[in-house]
Amino acid sequence: MSASSDRSSSVDSPGADSTQLLADVVDGTEAALRRYFDSRADEVALIGEEYRAAVDVLSRFVLLGGKRVRPLFAYLGWLAVPTGEGRSAPDRPDSDAAIATFAALELVQACALIHDDIIDRSDTRRGRPTAHRQFEATHRGADWSGDAAHYGVSAAVIVGDLALAWADDMIADAPITPESLRRVRSIWSIMRTEVLGGQLLDIVTEASGNESIDAAYRVMRHKTAGYTVSRPLTLGAALAGADEELQQTLLAAGTDLGLAFQLRDDVLGVFGDAARTGKPSGDDLVAAKRTALLAVALRRAHDRDPALADRLRALIGHPLTEAELDEARAIFVDVGALEEIETTIDELTTRAFDRLRGADAEPTAVGALASFTARLAHRES
Amino acid sequence: MSASSDRSSSVDSPGADSTQLLADVVDGTEAALRRYFDSRADEVALIGEEYRAAVDVLSRFVLLGGKRVRPLFAYLGWLAVPTGEGRSAPDRPDSDAAIATFAALELVQACALIHDDIIDRSDTRRGRPTAHRQFEATHRGADWSGDAAHYGVSAAVIVGDLALAWADDMIADAPITPESLRRVRSIWSIMRTEVLGGQLLDIVTEASGNESIDAAYRVMRHKTAGYTVSRPLTLGAALAGADEELQQTLLAAGTDLGLAFQLRDDVLGVFGDAARTGKPSGDDLVAAKRTALLAVALRRAHDRDPALADRLRALIGHPLTEAELDEARAIFVDVGALEEIETTIDELTTRAFDRLRGADAEPTAVGALASFTARLAHRES
Repeated sequence: MSASSDRSSSVDSPGADSTQLLADVVDGTEAALRRYFDSRADEVALIGEEYRAAVDVLSRFVLLGGKRVRPLFAYLGWLAVPTGEGRSAPDRPDSDAAIATFAALELVQACALIHDDIIDRSDTRRGRPTAHRQFEATHRGADWSGDAAHYGVSAAVIVGDLALAWADDMIADAPITPESLRRVRSIWSIMRTEVLGGQLLDIVTEASGNESIDAAYRVMRHKTAGYTVSRPLTLGAALAGADEELQQTLLAAGTDLGLAFQLRDDVLGVFGDAARTGKPSGDDLVAAKRTALLAVALRRAHDRDPALADRLRALIGHPLTEAELDEARAIFVDVGALEEIETTIDELTTRAFDRLRGADAEPTAVGALASFTARLAHRES
Repeated sequence: MSASSDRSSSVDSPGADSTQLLADVVDGTEAALRRYFDSRADEVALIGEEYRAAVDVLSRFVLLGGKRVRPLFAYLGWLAVPTGEGRSAPDRPDSDAAIATFAALELVQACALIHDDIIDRSDTRRGRPTAHRQFEATHRGADWSGDAAHYGVSAAVIVGDLALAWADDMIADAPITPESLRRVRSIWSIMRTEVLGGQLLDIVTEASGNESIDAAYRVMRHKTAGYTVSRPLTLGAALAGADEELQQTLLAAGTDLGLAFQLRDDVLGVFGDAARTGKPSGDDLVAAKRTALLAVALRRAHDRDPALADRLRALIGHPLTEAELDEARAIFVDVGALEEIETTIDELTTRAFDRLRGADAEPTAVGALASFTARLAHRES
């Protein structure tokens, strides 16, 4: 593959070139994941046919879906490190080795999604039944004894654990030097601890009905911004031997972009068009998701009239009629919450790219990052 | 600590010396785990107070309980490698570094137990509420909204994941050379894949009501024998630079010992004295656990009279009166299942020690292994 074969030519027209580059990274990631599953097939089959079937559910989950967002950010971080003489690590791996390393992020993500779907009791994911629902269906189909739903959850807990264990195995066996691995692993370690912390804060915030803007931002920061954007970016840069200053810039810019990314998601969760997002319109309101958008709306509604905040609270956490949905959306608009969040998205994005353009980073990578984040911001799901 | 300070003197009286040696390994393991939790405290606290409280549940779980069986087997595998000139790896770590490495096995075990307790819907573990019950109690105590039991399971899934992630971080950061790490990691990788396979086979065997002896042995082999004994033994030996022949001997002997260990557990699960084992008598019958003992009893009962097998089936899977428990036990004895399993335990144990005594292994380590496994076989819980 040739993701980085022509790094200097795309400054004039970053859009077209970076589209091809990103597509190459996606292909490389998927090929690496396929090779990894193949490499473990014999070991799994020896343990038992039932295990093989369960691991098949995992491999389909990983290979058939996902936008490979985390490996893409990691690749862009790797690409951002200047390669002038003596300016990156002497053991900087080539493009293929870097992509094979970043593919492990997709296995962490498989664990996160499979376990999150248990936590959220979700029935579908990427247009198919969630893992625990698939295992439940196996139980019912075979007419086994006991509680099929509990069996489904149990098997999905185990398979999610396997994805997490294999993510670590894949990183440990990545085709990079021990010194490169050491650089990657310090970020890998923080990243997993952080995303699990974000998930824990998320369920506590939900259960405790915490309406504070601060709580919503803490969940976003750890569950999304760090895990999805800033840690992958920094991990990629570390693999390429980035100096401390560039790593800090990528961490700060990645956090801003990650927050903007999640805020966009929150707006789509209330205002998104079902036909375009693929999720029911007003999804986040039905689920009473503790987003920053909701926290800002409740605070602003309360400041205007406590009864208005109560009305908004009454409109969430249950199925909504079209009229109720319109009423809720009107409150978000009227109190200025939508505008505040849109402004924040703009500010975060601007600040992130100001940081990146002011840093000693490869302009090609910054251009590709701009076109990739713009595409994510206008994504349909 | 001085676990290996006097390795040549204990051949005459292995019992007393090895008791002190094993106690030292337990102390070293716990000190390493305590240092590890301390080393991550700031990172966790930065993410949030709620996360800190959840990680406290994990650290108490790890630090306050457990017999440290896996680190002990790993240490004995390490000790078994002859240290004569040029006979073990030049980078063989010292005793303290080895124990600090093996302590990571306790974090894998924390994940396995916390997630297993969700799967088995267990309420207590080591005399305290299971992790998911502790989190459920937090939810109830704080009078949060939503389903407290589901919150408990969700938080325990997350905390189990963290234990698994930290196990890998602890191994990656172990105070050993990259070459030593490479030797350890190949076994570490198989071990985690294998134990998750054993757990999966276990729930499938249970749900499908599989009565075959083969299925019971496959679960034992992967969920217990490999994970608890043979993989830790081999991992320890690999760290000390054991040659392939000794590793294979330890793998085979460890599998035999692990199977014997689980068969002893199965016997205690039917015949054990509640006052000594700490579990209700006949526990495995109430839970209809698909043990080899049960599989052998059902096959032998069926061979004598299919109605007797049906009677035994009718006696399991629900609370039993004392009379029913006595009747079930009498069937296990009458059909010769108890005797067959006891004979198998003896044969496996004899074969394991024949292998070990015939191998080029340190006699001190083999003696300590004999006294440790004898103690486990007569354990009270």
